[in-house]
Amino acid sequence: MTAPIAVAQLVETALLNLVTFQTTIASKAARCRIAAAGRDLVDFAARRTHGHEAALAVARASALAGFSGTSYVAAARRYGLTATGTMAHSYILAFPGERAAFEAFAEDFPSATVFLVDTYDTPEGVGRAIEVARHLPPQHPFGVRLDSGDLCSLAADARRQLDKAGLTAARIVASGGLDEHSIAALVAHGAPIDAFGVGTRMGVSADAPSLDSAYKLVEYDGKPVMKLSTGKATAPGAKQVFRTAFGPRDVLALRNEDPPPGHEPLLTTVMTAGARTGPLRTEPEQVDDARDRFTVDLAWLPEHTLDLTSPVPVEVRTSDRLRALTERVHRSLTGQPN
Amino acid sequence: MTAPIAVAQLVETALLNLVTFQTTIASKAARCRIAAAGRDLVDFAARRTHGHEAALAVARASALAGFSGTSYVAAARRYGLTATGTMAHSYILAFPGERAAFEAFAEDFPSATVFLVDTYDTPEGVGRAIEVARHLPPQHPFGVRLDSGDLCSLAADARRQLDKAGLTAARIVASGGLDEHSIAALVAHGAPIDAFGVGTRMGVSADAPSLDSAYKLVEYDGKPVMKLSTGKATAPGAKQVFRTAFGPRDVLALRNEDPPPGHEPLLTTVMTAGARTGPLRTEPEQVDDARDRFTVDLAWLPEHTLDLTSPVPVEVRTSDRLRALTERVHRSLTGQPN
Repeated sequence: MTAPIAVAQLVETALLNLVTFQTTIASKAARCRIAAAGRDLVDFAARRTHGHEAALAVARASALAGFSGTSYVAAARRYGLTATGTMAHSYILAFPGERAAFEAFAEDFPSATVFLVDTYDTPEGVGRAIEVARHLPPQHPFGVRLDSGDLCSLAADARRQLDKAGLTAARIVASGGLDEHSIAALVAHGAPIDAFGVGTRMGVSADAPSLDSAYKLVEYDGKPVMKLSTGKATAPGAKQVFRTAFGPRDVLALRNEDPPPGHEPLLTTVMTAGARTGPLRTEPEQVDDARDRFTVDLAWLPEHTLDLTSPVPVEVRTSDRLRALTERVHRSLTGQPN
Repeated sequence: MTAPIAVAQLVETALLNLVTFQTTIASKAARCRIAAAGRDLVDFAARRTHGHEAALAVARASALAGFSGTSYVAAARRYGLTATGTMAHSYILAFPGERAAFEAFAEDFPSATVFLVDTYDTPEGVGRAIEVARHLPPQHPFGVRLDSGDLCSLAADARRQLDKAGLTAARIVASGGLDEHSIAALVAHGAPIDAFGVGTRMGVSADAPSLDSAYKLVEYDGKPVMKLSTGKATAPGAKQVFRTAFGPRDVLALRNEDPPPGHEPLLTTVMTAGARTGPLRTEPEQVDDARDRFTVDLAWLPEHTLDLTSPVPVEVRTSDRLRALTERVHRSLTGQPN
């Protein structure tokens, strides 16, 4: 009797472990996307994630939320993403001076020359980047990255220097402890930043470090079951969630209920009797599919749920049938008459 | 010229990624150990860690900080730890009643029979656990786990029920959103809890989600280097840290300085010219070594650094030679006379 339950518990650990973590990261990435208002976002989290596997998961989750690249080359290869790291401070410190470092970097990485300009003094760093960029071929992609200080005023200053030098196509990348709130503030203040690198605060989210979800048995051997623990009671039976694009209300229902008018089920069958029901997809294809779904799903969400500081959750209504079943199982467990 | 730097940057990502994460977890685990004041601690984090690799790392880090077991069987096997999970709510819900679940569990796991008693009603669950335990062989290890509600009063009540039934050797395990602060409060209030299961709040630490450390190049080609970025300036040269058991002060010095009287170096050589300098150790041996070192290191720390709510960090003094080198390199970078 206990074998299927032992398997269920293994599934619990494995799924919760990966799914809730990736949901946390994807939510954080989605908030950054909302904050960036169309500007590019790049995953810089690999240094701070909880291991290599977590770094891959963060790159994947942020890609499907719309990030345009990752600094983690292993993830870019695996999921078909754009690898877009820039130079590190240690690279610059290995050279006698900043200019020599920029020259060597432009030679080493001709297709992605983004100079890190804050190692010694940011405005002087931008000046040296411009000197080196003047000797690059005209169509050579070029940009600067700001990683410390007042990013808003430094970006404005860098933009002025670059435009004055005729380098109007040069991009400005900002990084350094960014999250959705600092990105939103920079966008609101009109900082001329083309792309944001987001690292620690997405890969190891401080304000929402984990998703408090758990695996609960809701049906066994054809019978609905529920838990009554103080503050942790569950609703019995296999569920479905119905959502509509035309209203703010989700409906939590039993799995076999018909959708209310204008609603679509959020849960779809991907496996039956241990076998995949759809075609086998490569990892890059899976990411592409998930990104497309995310874009559609995000557009479905009511405006008030997307507010970065005071989001109002989607209202959830319980179906009549689910409510009736919950009451019936509760009564039978607490010994009240059915 | 850039090849060694490219390698250094890969090392940066790989090391930071694992080392700073494990340091964060080990610190959190150490705080739980201090709070538990000698009672047992078990790692319950696997459901919420950032993937399988992170779950292994959390089990390892908590083991070296003195946790007596982990619920993650894969980690227990790999690192030679004690696997000490208890039953899940889903196990109980799969049976017609709590008592039938307890009987099956005692049969399935005769060596580690800890009954989860809060699925329906905790005092009643303890009563059912006692009924089942009465039919176990006299030396059969037995205990109950509380996972919700007011753990302090529920533990006192469970202890009374168990003692009244003559089951004075039965252990009480508590879990459910615990961290060092709630553990310290339960200990301070004299809750008769023998072991604490710590999960999410250690494996995904909310109050200290990441360690803000970075790889910095301090010497290249025999020359000391430093970074001057606003708020992110570094000190040049390879370092050593000297600590004494007899005072509160660490000394940050250059690598080749002699230790001040009564001080010992914290950094030791483990690799030279790409080769390990010590014997090859198995993973369980490595964990044992690290646990022993941790115990010694913890005893060296001054009392005020161990306070859970207002810890005072170890004071750090910079050596005269390091200070002089920092000033010299800073002057040369900012163009002042040497």
